[in-house]
Amino acid sequence: MPSHQPTAGDAAVDPQYLSSQPSPMASTSEPNRSKSYEPRKVHITDLPMTSENWYKHINWLNVYFIVLFPLSGLVAAFWTPLRLETAIWAVLYYFATGLGITAGYHRLWAHKSYNATQPLEIFLAAVGGGAVEGSIRWWARDHRAHHRYTDTEKDPYSVRKGLLYSHMGWMIMKQNPKRIGRTDISDLNESAIVRWQHKNYLKVVITMGLIVPCVVAGLFWGDWVGGIVYAGILRILFVQQATFCVNSLAHWLGEQPFDDRNSPRDHVITALVTLGEGYHNFHHEFPSDYRNAIEWFQYDPTKWFIWTMKQLGLAYDLKQFRQNEIEKGRVQQLQKKLDQKRSKLDWGVPLESLPVMEWDDYVDQCNNGRGLIAVGGVVHDVTAFIKEHPGGKAMISSGIGKDATAMFNGGVYMHSNAAHNLLSTMRVGVIRGGMEVEIWKRAQMENKDVQYVKD
Amino acid sequence: MPSHQPTAGDAAVDPQYLSSQPSPMASTSEPNRSKSYEPRKVHITDLPMTSENWYKHINWLNVYFIVLFPLSGLVAAFWTPLRLETAIWAVLYYFATGLGITAGYHRLWAHKSYNATQPLEIFLAAVGGGAVEGSIRWWARDHRAHHRYTDTEKDPYSVRKGLLYSHMGWMIMKQNPKRIGRTDISDLNESAIVRWQHKNYLKVVITMGLIVPCVVAGLFWGDWVGGIVYAGILRILFVQQATFCVNSLAHWLGEQPFDDRNSPRDHVITALVTLGEGYHNFHHEFPSDYRNAIEWFQYDPTKWFIWTMKQLGLAYDLKQFRQNEIEKGRVQQLQKKLDQKRSKLDWGVPLESLPVMEWDDYVDQCNNGRGLIAVGGVVHDVTAFIKEHPGGKAMISSGIGKDATAMFNGGVYMHSNAAHNLLSTMRVGVIRGGMEVEIWKRAQMENKDVQYVKD
Ligand code: HEM
Ligand code: HEM
Ligand SMILES: [Fe+2]
Ligand SMILES: [Fe+2]
Ligand SMILES: [Fe+2]
Ligand SMILES: [Fe+2]
Repeated sequence: MPSHQPTAGDAAVDPQYLSSQPSPMASTSEPNRSKSYEPRKVHITDLPMTSENWYKHINWLNVYFIVLFPLSGLVAAFWTPLRLETAIWAVLYYFATGLGITAGYHRLWAHKSYNATQPLEIFLAAVGGGAVEGSIRWWARDHRAHHRYTDTEKDPYSVRKGLLYSHMGWMIMKQNPKRIGRTDISDLNESAIVRWQHKNYLKVVITMGLIVPCVVAGLFWGDWVGGIVYAGILRILFVQQATFCVNSLAHWLGEQPFDDRNSPRDHVITALVTLGEGYHNFHHEFPSDYRNAIEWFQYDPTKWFIWTMKQLGLAYDLKQFRQNEIEKGRVQQLQKKLDQKRSKLDWGVPLESLPVMEWDDYVDQCNNGRGLIAVGGVVHDVTAFIKEHPGGKAMISSGIGKDATAMFNGGVYMHSNAAHNLLSTMRVGVIRGGMEVEIWKRAQMENKDVQYVKD
Repeated sequence: MPSHQPTAGDAAVDPQYLSSQPSPMASTSEPNRSKSYEPRKVHITDLPMTSENWYKHINWLNVYFIVLFPLSGLVAAFWTPLRLETAIWAVLYYFATGLGITAGYHRLWAHKSYNATQPLEIFLAAVGGGAVEGSIRWWARDHRAHHRYTDTEKDPYSVRKGLLYSHMGWMIMKQNPKRIGRTDISDLNESAIVRWQHKNYLKVVITMGLIVPCVVAGLFWGDWVGGIVYAGILRILFVQQATFCVNSLAHWLGEQPFDDRNSPRDHVITALVTLGEGYHNFHHEFPSDYRNAIEWFQYDPTKWFIWTMKQLGLAYDLKQFRQNEIEKGRVQQLQKKLDQKRSKLDWGVPLESLPVMEWDDYVDQCNNGRGLIAVGGVVHDVTAFIKEHPGGKAMISSGIGKDATAMFNGGVYMHSNAAHNLLSTMRVGVIRGGMEVEIWKRAQMENKDVQYVKD
């Protein structure tokens, strides 16, 4: 749980860039700062890990909340029979607390991708707390740093440090708060709900993580122990592992349709695991879009939840990037991939590197037996290709020593794109002053005699 | 079956393009020309179809061979019990005769995509005849015309005339031989096997289409009638319909990864039906490649057959386009699609259409309350966007009236590609003489005083 709070002087905006009339929202002071942290002292992460001090590198509080305690549910389950009602309730509560993280912590508070009315905010702050993944304030601060400094040293859960690190390692190992990039959370600090949840976080965890699931199962069907073990502890294990996948799996598995310079990726498996947060390449590119999946057939229950809340009047101002901007991103990424592919192919000698030939020289060489064909002002050596020509030897031979531009481009046969490509690999020269017709025109104008080789 | 032979004067090569020493292969005379056809008479296809003459428009011989006779097998099957041995034999013979068409008629004779030794040629000419789809000579001539004049009036089975027309209609309706585009089949006319098969075509059909399947079933397991009904007639029905799909389905269903100017398409369903001839967009682009499917996991048993024949020493000189040429085609087609997509999107006002502003004018307008931000020499109106800015109001406001190029490009936050795209849609002007730094440099050089608005 929250263990690395921003350091002193860690203002959201570099002072040199602050506008003259600071917006009332851009407060640089941060309430709720952990009082115990003293920036001048040497931090444990500055010391190498040894067999002596290794246990000081571990964040034992987090180890308890995300490893020992959730795993203890597996042990308890041995002695606790699972009742059908409790199983159904555990799954439902899994979805509720999961949505607390995805629709609440993530899309509402970290990204402000929509606005929620107070009742919805309270609900999300409550069930989000029940997922036992830290307070909104702590979570959203790290998450904004993750977006702003993705894949860099300042990214709190950079996948560049390994898949396991991005999944849980970043919480299990102590972090130097100076390392995490700074972000503006003035809007969160102004929210009474966020502040309250942060201050009373442990109470929220116990109430929403354990008491509520236990009491519901106990009061309605008398399964107090099952409620705490399955809908409480084990459900925490699952919801934690599932939502942690947004930081690990979503930066590791899948496609990159919008930008491949960073690690975020789109994959349906991640989406299935994370209540729809699996279209993460899209999400990093359009973080303030309330959707993660933009196609109707893709799995994004968090989006469906937010949309339903809007229909019920509980959410409003759902933000959405214009389709035009989304398509632009896709087109640019496709272009980039295509350019990479193109640059690996052989497109023939560039025209400017070819030797220049006279028309008469071209004709002479052909009469001396070379298999040259001029098409579009460029001379091609087709000697080796004649017997392979799909249109037959006779066809291609009929172009040797001539201006074959017209024949090649439809006069005899409208050659395919593939044929044009192949032709360009056979380039050996360019003809000075264009093609045969140009030579004749010039001769006509200059009233000079041009030697025409009859065939 | 062959009913429209080339007309007189229908030379493979337009005489004006014939080379002075015609290759011995480019003979313009065509043996085996049907004597009954008289080009000067009015052809039936020149007359409109009426209730009087409709039956004259029908090619009854073909109707018999590809409709009535194969369908009669369905009727005969009512009285003929199907034995397992005969069923297996019918399927095997289906593959053999199918390969006669795909590996023989199509890839060997029509496209010369490999060379076959005499035993293999004889085998393919025999089983190909057993598929009852015309002689090699007739089939390959039409097929070459189909490739050379794809989708045009000269294409014998142009899909532009309808799916059914390209499937069977072109055989059922009489054709004016003048309509079919001319092609060079001198190489086929020189082949003794091709000439023999053409001359003795009816004998080949009866032997390979009916007698062989009947005799095998009769001699080995005593099922003479089943052999003729199932391995003979019904097998003909299936192999005909399957291979006809190359002309219909393959020009109608699927993707166009190499060229979308013509109708040929790639689809796995067509491949499954046609012994691998389903990668037809590729095939029309690279017709002399012995493969139709280029990926190992795609279904192309015809390719596998040819390859096996090569291992057995029965086939040689298997032609293959360089992977480089294939990839070039793919890249170009992708580029074309991408360009089409790009042109449909809004990329913001082009820079050259924007009004030019002075730097001081830009700063003045911002001081008067306009939400303008200059990035990279271009002024953007972000007024409506400030409250939506994913990086917060304070951040974006800090750039107003300043040269925000550096902040926007990493000084504060390295904006995503999406942010750059969005920015360009907000363009309202360009700054004369570049950005703030340029103004200062110039002022310095001119030793003039520039009004700097402090904020
Ligand atoms: C210069 C005179 C040429 C003539 C008159 C000519 C004629 C033809 C004809 C008629 C075809 C169609 C074959 C068919 O019916 O399927 C053809 C196909 C082809 N030709 Fe040529 N050709 C010429 C030169 C070339 C050259 C110089 C190249 C390449 C270096 C070339 C490459 C091809 C290729 C790759 C095909 C098969 C692909 C397709 O259908 O487009 N040809 N040619
Ligand atoms: C001019 C000064 C600007 C500053 C200092 C600034 C700063 C920032 C910062 C820090 C973020 C990251 C938010 C986060 O932590 O997740 C951000 C995101 C974003 N900004 Fe700006 N911004 C500026 C101008 C603009 C402008 C003019 C636009 C577009 C017209 C823009 C579009 C965006 C978008 C779309 C994002 C979210 C997408 C992404 O993560 O790249 N910003 N901005
Ligand atoms: Fe991420
Ligand atoms: Fe996010
Ligand atoms: Fe075709
Ligand atoms: Fe073909």
